[in-house]
Amino acid sequence: MPEKHLTAPPAAADKNISVSNWLRLVRVYNLMCKELRSRLKEQSGCTLPQFDVLAQLHRFGRGMTFVELSRELLVTSGNLTGIVDRLTAMGHVTRQPDQRDRRVIRVVLTPGGADLMEQLLPRHSADLEDLLHALSAADQQALQRVLGKLRVSLQSVG
Amino acid sequence: MPEKHLTAPPAAADKNISVSNWLRLVRVYNLMCKELRSRLKEQSGCTLPQFDVLAQLHRFGRGMTFVELSRELLVTSGNLTGIVDRLTAMGHVTRQPDQRDRRVIRVVLTPGGADLMEQLLPRHSADLEDLLHALSAADQQALQRVLGKLRVSLQSVG
Repeated sequence: MPEKHLTAPPAAADKNISVSNWLRLVRVYNLMCKELRSRLKEQSGCTLPQFDVLAQLHRFGRGMTFVELSRELLVTSGNLTGIVDRLTAMGHVTRQPDQRDRRVIRVVLTPGGADLMEQLLPRHSADLEDLLHALSAADQQALQRVLGKLRVSLQSVG
Repeated sequence: MPEKHLTAPPAAADKNISVSNWLRLVRVYNLMCKELRSRLKEQSGCTLPQFDVLAQLHRFGRGMTFVELSRELLVTSGNLTGIVDRLTAMGHVTRQPDQRDRRVIRVVLTPGGADLMEQLLPRHSADLEDLLHALSAADQQALQRVLGKLRVSLQSVG
């Protein structure tokens, strides 16, 4: 029954490819973070988690609560209060009471923080394009498709 | 000159695919870490960085110096001394002077630590296989190929 053979459970070789892919993904993630971290530091003096907070605030526009921020952050949230304190000291964000419920605090970009992001975001896109330059259009599309499939599957696990 | 058009610099759509792929990679990495973290905790009481140290020690066999360990770790090294202290308290590792140069300290697995890894590594492989189950063999091969290419390219940047 050759059909049965074709749908047999993954053999040792397939098990190894999952481990291999995870190790490659971790290495690529770490190498990308290292490179983005150093470019970002040079461009703005910001760390990756600081940039992540600024990027979410820029994306959402009208300020975010700490709960909303921690839900949206890409990089590990770590000490979010400390990151926001530091960004406040740098003049990029400020804490404001919510207009409808003044007990709720929203973190908002200052005009200077918004200007900074207008400068940084195109450079960040260009940096990512540069870091992925080795991939052909077909490679990029394959990566997008496979990672998209994996993300959907993993979101249903959690 | 249609040929020229075909090899033109990446347009806006291609720039966006780099950003999209980075965001997908970060999400997948975080979702995988979250899931592996909780499974590992349940299986062994270990954190991901602790498991990472144990896995490297298991792979190298005859103990590693702190410098060797920090070079090989997959997850952020963070506070390596603290991780090794905690693993020592758990009875999984011990510090030993190097046999040739007693000023050098090597971290080695205890027999109990080695037994633990013999149990954990197959479960970790099975967990990875499970987390990547949504990918077909062709998807896995595409991911392996594209991430491999990207890893080589990024290693030459750093």
